[in-house]
This record gives sequence, structure tokens and C-alpha cells, in this order.
Amino acid sequence: MTNDRVYASIITIGDELLIGQTIDTNSAWMAQELNKLGIWVKRRVAVGDLWDEIWNALDEESKQSQVILITGGLGPTADDITKPLLNEYFGGKLVIDEAALRNVKDIFEKYIKRQMLDVNLKQAEVPDVCTVIQNKRGTAPGMWFEKDGKVFISMPGVPNEMKGMMSDFVLPRLPQIFSLPAVVHRTLLTAGIGESYIADRIKDFETNLPEHIKLAYLPNFGMVRLRLTATGKNETEITAEVDNLFLNLQSQLQDVMVINEDKTLEEAIGLMLAKHNKTVATAESCTGGYISHLITSVPGSSKYFKGGIVSYHNTVKENILCVDADTLDNHGAVSAETVFEMAVAAKELIKTDFAIAVSGVMGPDGGTDEKPVGTVWVAVAAKSGTITKKFQTRYGRHQNIEVTAIHALNLLRQTIITELENNFSDNNK
Amino acid sequence: MTNDRVYASIITIGDELLIGQTIDTNSAWMAQELNKLGIWVKRRVAVGDLWDEIWNALDEESKQSQVILITGGLGPTADDITKPLLNEYFGGKLVIDEAALRNVKDIFEKYIKRQMLDVNLKQAEVPDVCTVIQNKRGTAPGMWFEKDGKVFISMPGVPNEMKGMMSDFVLPRLPQIFSLPAVVHRTLLTAGIGESYIADRIKDFETNLPEHIKLAYLPNFGMVRLRLTATGKNETEITAEVDNLFLNLQSQLQDVMVINEDKTLEEAIGLMLAKHNKTVATAESCTGGYISHLITSVPGSSKYFKGGIVSYHNTVKENILCVDADTLDNHGAVSAETVFEMAVAAKELIKTDFAIAVSGVMGPDGGTDEKPVGTVWVAVAAKSGTITKKFQTRYGRHQNIEVTAIHALNLLRQTIITELENNFSDNNK
Repeated sequence: MTNDRVYASIITIGDELLIGQTIDTNSAWMAQELNKLGIWVKRRVAVGDLWDEIWNALDEESKQSQVILITGGLGPTADDITKPLLNEYFGGKLVIDEAALRNVKDIFEKYIKRQMLDVNLKQAEVPDVCTVIQNKRGTAPGMWFEKDGKVFISMPGVPNEMKGMMSDFVLPRLPQIFSLPAVVHRTLLTAGIGESYIADRIKDFETNLPEHIKLAYLPNFGMVRLRLTATGKNETEITAEVDNLFLNLQSQLQDVMVINEDKTLEEAIGLMLAKHNKTVATAESCTGGYISHLITSVPGSSKYFKGGIVSYHNTVKENILCVDADTLDNHGAVSAETVFEMAVAAKELIKTDFAIAVSGVMGPDGGTDEKPVGTVWVAVAAKSGTITKKFQTRYGRHQNIEVTAIHALNLLRQTIITELENNFSDNNK
Repeated sequence: MTNDRVYASIITIGDELLIGQTIDTNSAWMAQELNKLGIWVKRRVAVGDLWDEIWNALDEESKQSQVILITGGLGPTADDITKPLLNEYFGGKLVIDEAALRNVKDIFEKYIKRQMLDVNLKQAEVPDVCTVIQNKRGTAPGMWFEKDGKVFISMPGVPNEMKGMMSDFVLPRLPQIFSLPAVVHRTLLTAGIGESYIADRIKDFETNLPEHIKLAYLPNFGMVRLRLTATGKNETEITAEVDNLFLNLQSQLQDVMVINEDKTLEEAIGLMLAKHNKTVATAESCTGGYISHLITSVPGSSKYFKGGIVSYHNTVKENILCVDADTLDNHGAVSAETVFEMAVAAKELIKTDFAIAVSGVMGPDGGTDEKPVGTVWVAVAAKSGTITKKFQTRYGRHQNIEVTAIHALNLLRQTIITELENNFSDNNK
């Protein structure tokens, strides 16, 4: 339809967003996917289930953007008014869509196994002026409207259903309608250095970037993700250009770089362990299973993660991890000595190459003068020995758990690098 | 300033929100806190780090709302333009705030322990037309502006820093400026029944609600939270009214109600266990520690959670949980027999009153014809015996893990209720 930059607005509908009971995770995912296609999200707007608010948002955002993505407001209850509103906005008539009806019936038979209600049947109704987007993961169909060169796409707010419709229908169709630029991203992850220090180190690099290549800083708890994005007409050309700059960036940040791909810390660790055929175990006190959860959230982690012990109570540290009662008495559960014994025991008990152990005070209670809330000891046991490290975090309980997990995983990562480098000649014997 | 309903708009600033690398968790928290005060969030808008976009959002939202909360755009890097923009918008002059400067220096000395950069010092600059909100958890101060009867509050995007400023300064101050209505919320959590079935059951109740009392449905993976919100001038009156309706609602949903407070499933379980002085352990395969993470995310959970085994690999099931090799051979890791043995072993090994065990296929790989992705077995061991239950989930890996945890925790909850009721006479002996 146009050769200029294509902009998108995301409108999320639902009182649950405005009363704060739902965190909007959809928009971030949608923005990422649109970005990959070369569509730029200009604005995201959340409005309640109110006729005028939704109507105005459609008017407003279609002045700013060519693609208007709408999520939510399609549930079976009375406060969901989006479908009749869209029907009126685009001047249509509500009709039953046969494929959507079969889908609703099918889901009730296979999964819900209850009598269908009238409101469920009504979900198969759609305005006759839209292209129906079938929902393979739920009962509410999506709707695709076109008006004055703009595309309006309405989808359910359930993340899984929205993602299915985007992947199967919306994302393949948008490039057929709009002439989109080539976009190339290169991402690297750093750990242990703040955003402003990185910015200071690569000041010259950043200043000299050409207009069509942007650098984004994406910080998160002691880790910073850096993303180069090149936009242009010729994909081959901009790929070569951004790859060249990316090599330069990597060489400037080599000492703090975790991985030169758009991966998480736990994915980076998984790749290293899988590559070298090594395994890991966990012994967690204060993080209560969060570290093993992060490791196992990666598909295929069963190749390198064997298991873990959540030794929340000291009796579990003593009875299963065989931490010495004297160690606990003399040094306490939050000590170098305790995490040392925990890590060694987990590695032996679960028979792995590496083991992580953590013990700390996550708050809000449990702090003392000597060991205030946020005191954390981490240990990593490996073939070459066991190292311990103390950290101090300074957040609320949830974030303390998160930060502790990142610290522990980063210590594991550094140990794996040292170990595999040190043992390199061993491995080749 | 006014006696009408007070509306708020939340503006979040930052390219990271529009390229989808950051999920906005701030807005939900802010909306909840504002709601408690009787301030209604009308719109939430996310814009990039662009001068005109931010300026227009300030213009637009101040037409709609009396309170405009702004987060983000206050970082030390060059793309953060919010502070100079606000300075110009409100016609001020940037000056060093001495208290903010001391705070920046303090944080660098105590935590960061690196040489300060010029950009860090610049964080202590503020427009001379604002009231400075000191940041106890970070380096960027917040700013409070008033103009034409509207209040504009700019805060950092870091959740922890924003929350500190809101709690210490913004939330106590807003009721001093605006005349706010009394607002009373009552929340209950249900499990095991869909939104549309609840709506159908309480149709009459909902239809007969007075205009000033609203009912919200907040569904999440097989659980639905129901919230009654009453607004009015006389707090005593509306409290009595909403309490009365809430009792009615509870009696209609008693069979599916988890708890009659605004708590999570894991908090509800924690309250029951703590009250009866009982303890729980976990034995997790497919959820990889997520269940113990949920349980231990509740402050004070060490009172009733002793520990868990993450038996990801079968050797851990055999060696630590002593699952019979024949059981694994004959029935497989994902079977009633295996989770039964896991739960019993965890309960004995960790010496608790209850134990949960789970084993399943979370995907994307590992499914077979007989046990496709999404097949899950759950067991709960208790004094009265051990029950097992099969579930089928149908999402992606992350959501399958989440749904499995909820199913398992709900089975534990039901078991605790049965057990404690059955043993009631025992306890009183």
C-alpha cells in the first residue's frame, strides 16, 4: 500500500488492564514480532471496556499508524463489547461463521466437557465485513478489517490464542499488503557491568553509527542486552554492514560478553553444557527452586540438567545434602562453609560435572545485624574445585530471588568457561 | 481540587517498550495502588524516546485525566530525553538538587564501587519548577509538577525505584490534593471452573448489583478471581453494603472458592498449613522446581515448606527418591505409579505432613502417541493416603509448566481440606 515506513499501534482492551489485575505481556511479544518484519510500533494504548474509549482509540491510532492491532474484549461475558463495536465501526452485520462454530463445539467436546452455554455459541458470530481469523487454541475467532489503506486486527487477549493467530495468519499476511524494508538485528548479552559504563566504553562506536543503524540498551538486573538494528532496502548490504559493526562491538565488550546471540543467561549456559557434554545440579536454599526452574525452562534442558535439592529447612541440608551440623551451628545456614558443603554434596549425590548452591536472606524477615536481608552466599562445585562468593542484594523478596539466581548462574557460567579451558588439553588426550 | 471522579493516565516512556524487550509490569502495580485510593486509571499509553511523541502524550493525557503518572526515560544514557523535555514543558531551569546528589554519591560508594561518570552526576539535576521526589533505591530522582489543576509525576522505569517513590511520597500526597471517594474492594479466588460458567451461575446476582458496585472477572489458567468494587461517599455505608453482597457471592460459589481474600493459590495454601501447623515437601520432575518456587515466593513460607527434590533425570528419581527401577521400566516416568512413589518418598525423606509430586511432558519435544505433549501426572501424599490424578494441558512449554503447577497446588489444597476436616477430631484429642 505504501513505500514509507510502516507504523503499528497496539490497542489493548479490558478493565482488567486498568485496574491492574493483569500484566500486559502480549504487547511486548507483538512488538518483537512486528519489528522482525520491519514494522515499527509507534504507540501502545490500553483502554477499558467502554464504548467511547475504544471508539476514540480506533480513530486516534488509525491517524498515527497503518496497522492497528487490537487485543482483548472478546470474552463471552457481557462486559466484552469489542465485537459489536467493531461491527458498527466498520458498518457490518453480525453473522455466524460456520468454521468458528465448529471450532467452539469441538473445544467443548474435547477439553471442556461441559454443556455449552448460549454465550459460548455467540462467540462464533462475526461481522460480515471482516476476514475471520480462526482460533486453533480457543473459542473466540479473530477479525481482520481493512479501511482507507489501514489494517485493523482484533484478537483475543489470551496470550496463547493471540500468538497462534499472529504466527499462523497475521504475520505472514502483513508483508503481502505493505511494502516493508529489510530489517536485521544483532544482539549480545553482557553481565556484571552497568548500562552507563558500557555506554562510556563504546561512546565512539555509538557516535559513529550510521543513521540507519540503531543501538538499544536493554538492562535487567546486572545484565545488559545490546541490540543493533539495521534498516534498509537491500538485505544483503545491510547484513554485511551490521555484521561488521557487530564484530567490532563484540571485540570491545569481549570481557563482559555472555553470548553474541539473543539468548538468556540460562540458554547460554545450556548451549555450553550441551556442547561439551557436561551436566549440572542445584542445591537451593533461599531461591527455593527458582534456579532449577530457570534452567529447566529451556527446551532440551534434560540433556544437561539432572536435578536438584531444595534444602529450605536446615534438616534437609543436614539429612539429604549431609551438611555438617557443626558447620550449620558454627557458621549458620548463610555462610561460605554451608554453601560449599551443599554444592559438593549436590555434585556427588546427583553425579554431575557441576553444581550450584545458594543460601541467603531474601526478606522481608530473617535479617540480622551481621547478616542483613539481601546477604547471599553462592558456591559452584566443579572438577577443579569449589568456589564460593558473597553477594549483597538490595531489593524486595521477589527481586532478591531473581538477582540471586542471576548471580549464581553467572558464577556457574564463569566456572564452566575456566574449567573447559583449563581442561582443554585433558579433553583432547 | 475537584469533587468529581479523579482519573489518572499512565504514560510509559522508552523504546524498549515499543521494540518489545521489556514487559511493562509497572502499570499494573500503579493501577492497583491508585484504585485503592479511589483514583481510576483511564488510559495507559506507551511511547518511544521521541520528543514529539512524549510532548503530545502529555498534552493528550492531561485533557483526559487529572493525574498523569510518567515512568521511564530518566536513565543516564543519551537517548533518555524525558528530563529536559519536562523542564521545557513546565518552563523551568535545570539545577543540581543537593539531596539527590548526595544520594547518587552514596550509592556509588556503597554498592557500585566504581568511579562515577559525568552522566551519573547529571542524574542529580532537576527542573527548578518541580518538587523533587528522592529515590532511596537508585540514582534518578523523581519529579512532581502541578499545572492548571493537574498533577504530573515523573519516576524512573525501574520497578523497585518507582514503587519506593509511589509508596513513600506519591500515594500519601495525592489524597491531600484531590477529594477522593471511598473505595472498598472484596476479592475471592475460584479454581476449576471457567469464567462463562461462573457468569452463568451468578447471572441474577450480577444483574441486580447497584450502579456503584462493580463485579470484575479476572481469569488466569483455570482460576478466576472475582472482585467487587464499591465506590461512594460514606465508607461505613458502602463497606456494609459490599460485605453483605460479598457474603451472598461466597455462598453461591462456595464449592469452587479457594479463598475469600485477594490472595494467590500458594498464599491460600500457606495460610492453611501455617494455621494447622503442617508442612509440605515437593518432588518435581517436569515443573523443574517451579512449584517449590511458587510456594517459597510467599514471605514466611519457611514455616511450612521444608524442601523438595527436583528429580529431572530418572537416576535422581531412583537414587534419591528411591522410585523402583521396575516402576520406571514398566510404567514410564510419566505415570500414576511413578508420581505415587515420588510423593510418598518425598514425604518420608523430608519428613513432612504432605508432599506433591509431578511428572509430565512439557514439550516441545518428548511426546509420544501414548503420552503426547501436555500429559501430566500429579500425586499428593498425605497422612490419609496418596492420591494421583492425570491432567492434559495444551499450551507451549512455559504455560504448560505454569498450568501443571496450578493443578498440583490445587490438588494439594483439596487434600489439605479433606485431611484436616477428617482429622479434626484427631487434632482435638
